[in-house]
Amino acid sequence: MKELMIPIKTESKIPLYEQIYQYIREEIKGSRLQCDTRLPSTRALASFLQVSRSTVELAYAQLTAEGYIHSLPCKGYYVSDISLLYQLQTHTFPVEEKTVTKTEQFDIDFSLKGIDMDAFPYNSWRKVTREILSGDNEELFIGGATKGDLDFRETVSVYLRESRGVNCSPHQIIIGAGNEYLLMLLYQIFGLIFQSQKVNIVMENPTYIQAYKVFCGLGGNIIAVPVDGNGMSYEILELHKEAQAAYIMPSHQFPTGNVMPMKRRLELLKWANEKENRYIIEDDYDSEFRYKGKPIPALQGMNAADKVVYIGTFSKSVAPAIRVSYLVLPPKLMEIYEKKMSYYANTVPRLHQKVLESFIRQEYYARHLNRMRSLYKNKHDMMINLLKEQQMTYYGENVGLHLLVEVKNKKSEQQIIHEARNGGVKIYGLSQFAIAPLNTPSTVILGFGSMKEQEIEKGMNILKSVWK
Amino acid sequence: MKELMIPIKTESKIPLYEQIYQYIREEIKGSRLQCDTRLPSTRALASFLQVSRSTVELAYAQLTAEGYIHSLPCKGYYVSDISLLYQLQTHTFPVEEKTVTKTEQFDIDFSLKGIDMDAFPYNSWRKVTREILSGDNEELFIGGATKGDLDFRETVSVYLRESRGVNCSPHQIIIGAGNEYLLMLLYQIFGLIFQSQKVNIVMENPTYIQAYKVFCGLGGNIIAVPVDGNGMSYEILELHKEAQAAYIMPSHQFPTGNVMPMKRRLELLKWANEKENRYIIEDDYDSEFRYKGKPIPALQGMNAADKVVYIGTFSKSVAPAIRVSYLVLPPKLMEIYEKKMSYYANTVPRLHQKVLESFIRQEYYARHLNRMRSLYKNKHDMMINLLKEQQMTYYGENVGLHLLVEVKNKKSEQQIIHEARNGGVKIYGLSQFAIAPLNTPSTVILGFGSMKEQEIEKGMNILKSVWK
Repeated sequence: MKELMIPIKTESKIPLYEQIYQYIREEIKGSRLQCDTRLPSTRALASFLQVSRSTVELAYAQLTAEGYIHSLPCKGYYVSDISLLYQLQTHTFPVEEKTVTKTEQFDIDFSLKGIDMDAFPYNSWRKVTREILSGDNEELFIGGATKGDLDFRETVSVYLRESRGVNCSPHQIIIGAGNEYLLMLLYQIFGLIFQSQKVNIVMENPTYIQAYKVFCGLGGNIIAVPVDGNGMSYEILELHKEAQAAYIMPSHQFPTGNVMPMKRRLELLKWANEKENRYIIEDDYDSEFRYKGKPIPALQGMNAADKVVYIGTFSKSVAPAIRVSYLVLPPKLMEIYEKKMSYYANTVPRLHQKVLESFIRQEYYARHLNRMRSLYKNKHDMMINLLKEQQMTYYGENVGLHLLVEVKNKKSEQQIIHEARNGGVKIYGLSQFAIAPLNTPSTVILGFGSMKEQEIEKGMNILKSVWK
Repeated sequence: MKELMIPIKTESKIPLYEQIYQYIREEIKGSRLQCDTRLPSTRALASFLQVSRSTVELAYAQLTAEGYIHSLPCKGYYVSDISLLYQLQTHTFPVEEKTVTKTEQFDIDFSLKGIDMDAFPYNSWRKVTREILSGDNEELFIGGATKGDLDFRETVSVYLRESRGVNCSPHQIIIGAGNEYLLMLLYQIFGLIFQSQKVNIVMENPTYIQAYKVFCGLGGNIIAVPVDGNGMSYEILELHKEAQAAYIMPSHQFPTGNVMPMKRRLELLKWANEKENRYIIEDDYDSEFRYKGKPIPALQGMNAADKVVYIGTFSKSVAPAIRVSYLVLPPKLMEIYEKKMSYYANTVPRLHQKVLESFIRQEYYARHLNRMRSLYKNKHDMMINLLKEQQMTYYGENVGLHLLVEVKNKKSEQQIIHEARNGGVKIYGLSQFAIAPLNTPSTVILGFGSMKEQEIEKGMNILKSVWK
């Protein structure tokens, strides 16, 4: 038996038992202590190293638990065969050159995706996370309910009721990692209820293109219908007898920015009610940010909980990396989900659900929303003033994080975008959200969520020369 | 202008400005301060309350940012119209009776899902999370790469190379919130490459039923093939000319526990290589836990990175609530994903990716795996000993967290399960994983991952009387 000359540092921050554990482990990994070598008894090693016996026992227990040594009754501790153990070489991680995706760089980007992250309440978020981690929350690492944790769904249902007039119990809610994922689930529920892989879904043209791609990707038959300033109409729906569901954004149509008036909403509900299995999908993606006038409650809350599937997200209102969305299902659809699809484990980590729940319950969320609304309103008003100054025709105001500008200089949308980009300003064309040919004048979309005020001013000045 | 008699507590933990902010906010919310009321100047209020002017300024700034008050140039601060503000009633969250899903309760459950959570390294996990939260990591709240953060994918690629012989660059990896989600993506990639919503996928019978359900849910045409003790064979694949992909678990077939021998693996690769667009899906769901013999490297690493889609998860090896899985794609499939499907935002929160990355890089993961293997091996050996004592025919040993037992008492599988359940022991039948009629003797499956050793002993003793 070899002497273990373990160089112990009593003044080190590393506990004594850990030093002994690490030393012996490295000796074993380096084959200096070989398989079946007998180790000194805990008593002998403790006395030799002048440490307490329990310190050595702790080190041996650790080595045993990790498979480096084992004990034989009445014989002592022996080095194990470690060829099966995980020895991840933590030093070999490649310091590979980051391959930045080559995208054009613009000084100014009227992006439609960004939100204002300067105002993200990092400190509150950290505080809540720390509180939860230090609490007795070990169950958060065990698998949770497939629909999401009940406490969190309760919090979401109350929030939706109070802020959007959505009429739902927590049992109607499915939490998921983003809208696209929840739309994939929804499409499969439709597939089951309509007993077909090909579901006929009416969508406005132009529309939220991600949703369109998800439905297409799963085999959906998309019926693109034109919109007037109020969105999809009953008359147009009536032309498409095969339609099984209609996807709309009544609070703020993307990208046109239209708000659907009450009369139109009632007509669409009438359409849905005319047939047993007909549904409306209401995507309420950014109605948290309304700057003028009372918010119109969600369509779902208009006595339509049986007919309207409601979907929304925290990615816009909290932060893009908060991949938490919610799907509110009519009871009949939820029944199908529970019977046939509950094998899909929930996609949002429970810790993440808990943090967001606490963030909402402790009022941080309401305060954050109010602060953001105020910030966005300043940018929104600034945009409107600059557009008015330039006598531009704009629409989609009063809600959300983008505006549309109709450019009447006889240039094509393509040309306008191209000229703006040459000036270092990235803007977006309406036609990029078209799912069928569009018949509109040249229109560009300007997102202002992630822009700083100076950037808005600078960007608008550059655009002035482009669209004159 | 009303006097603001704000009851300030200088000894309170709540900062002074926050007390002023809260008081005025409540006055406004309670309509005691009404819209357009002028507030005292910061100087006047500071002097009245005997606090510094900057304290009042901070309170007013907070109220302004959240939309409760606004300032008019040269005039002062006024109460705003707050009818549009979010006022989430944090106290009205319903204390609803928790509806525990009514499932039968068993004293002992040889569950196939559970893992041993008593050994979860809560402290290391918390420590790593705190480190990351206190660091300068604010970018973690901004939307990240759709495939997952590059640093994390690098870490995963090194881990897979070292521990499983998987041959891949970080660029071939997609991170996702669970296997089902990644299989949904994969199915869509197949849909694009085969230009059909109906992909012909061969699966072993019995198989991992979740994967089967996902493929079916998306319209897949599943060809169920019988297995011998070595899994799917070339001869059987040859009978199904229409097959476009084969889903296998060569390291440890679920549920049969078979390990596919090298010869069979080579044959399957040969099959895949015979046609340009033919793929093998290798699900490597629990090969971290192997108790005897050298682990066989992944099929993907056998010069087959062009033909094998590799999928695995951290849910088994770390914790069920860690919804992080990885999909390793052949370059050609990745190209399709990047061209056509990168609109799917990543489903794993970046903070979560960062914590797991750090957990792996700081060696906590390797230590955890070794500890768990040792724990599971004890349970595994105990099960085997008890089965031997009872002279039962078992199979699927040496890997994973479950064993199969063939019961030769002429009772049906149903009957055996029923009798065990009457004795308070929940066990599972092989046929519950059948995707076509099975032609096997009565076989039950016993998971031991989440069981305590006393439970295993007690459970096995009860089963003894059932299957004699």
